[in-house]
Amino acid sequence: MKKKTAVLLYPQFSEYELSVALSILMQGKKTIVTIGLNNQPIIGESGLSVVPDKTVDEVNFDELDSLLLTGCMDILALENHEKYINFIRDVVTDETIIASISSSPYLLAKAGYLKEKKYTVGMTPENREESGVFERENYSDELVVKDGNVITARGRGFIRFGIYFGNALNLDFDEDWFKE
Amino acid sequence: MKKKTAVLLYPQFSEYELSVALSILMQGKKTIVTIGLNNQPIIGESGLSVVPDKTVDEVNFDELDSLLLTGCMDILALENHEKYINFIRDVVTDETIIASISSSPYLLAKAGYLKEKKYTVGMTPENREESGVFERENYSDELVVKDGNVITARGRGFIRFGIYFGNALNLDFDEDWFKE
Repeated sequence: MKKKTAVLLYPQFSEYELSVALSILMQGKKTIVTIGLNNQPIIGESGLSVVPDKTVDEVNFDELDSLLLTGCMDILALENHEKYINFIRDVVTDETIIASISSSPYLLAKAGYLKEKKYTVGMTPENREESGVFERENYSDELVVKDGNVITARGRGFIRFGIYFGNALNLDFDEDWFKE
Repeated sequence: MKKKTAVLLYPQFSEYELSVALSILMQGKKTIVTIGLNNQPIIGESGLSVVPDKTVDEVNFDELDSLLLTGCMDILALENHEKYINFIRDVVTDETIIASISSSPYLLAKAGYLKEKKYTVGMTPENREESGVFERENYSDELVVKDGNVITARGRGFIRFGIYFGNALNLDFDEDWFKE
């Protein structure tokens, strides 16, 4: 069975940080499943109302091999943290390819998947510190970082982030679509 | 009254070509209204299901001062062309600022708003010719073209396209969000 990519959505998710990665998945004929806590539309930070394909309770975990997490305007204020983190724990296995951009590595760190991994994240040093979930010594200033199966990026790196993810999934795509 | 931007959505609309422009509108505190032919979710080319804020019949045209058109995977195969074109004609006045990327200038040309305008479009020369709606002598090879109130772009220019639109609307935004 050809497996799918889980795309977790939360209120105020970033559309632009997500969209190049989604286009690369589409080009590479990788099916996505957008996922929300419930079946109500989720409004992104720029105003798109997106209906998730599945709720966290409907997902068939066996059909997933990868996870895409986009940024969120104010991730520290995100309600129901635990539900998102539980979902991430339910998806991730040793083989799962994870791509997480902007502030979303916060969820990944909280779920325990940045342990001893080199990573980056779009949060201020103060917020990183206060959150209490990041390993200071493994933070990288690079825009996109890959350590094993985990890709992290800051928002400005959203094009390269999509390219790294497509490559990690061995997809066939044309990155010139996104380059001036 | 602070006016809004109409964002017309059609099946297989391009999410990434749209998303940087949307982020710039959000940064600039410009309200958007996403619009569909009816109130059903519209599935983008990369799989996002978007519920439009309004249908073409519900729109208050007086509250709009601008129009954003994203690409569409196969615009020549788009059903209900006439309904989209009628909507465009209902929105556009002499003052409307129009931003149209990728294949969507086809709709604009069909609606009559590229007459004697310098423009670009993401279609092959053969498709441009066959469509019978484009003025050959006004085509430009530039990635983004502005002629009066009309901005057109090819897909790869999606970041600069958003920046041109934000500038044409006199918005305050930080283009470094999108630059590596």
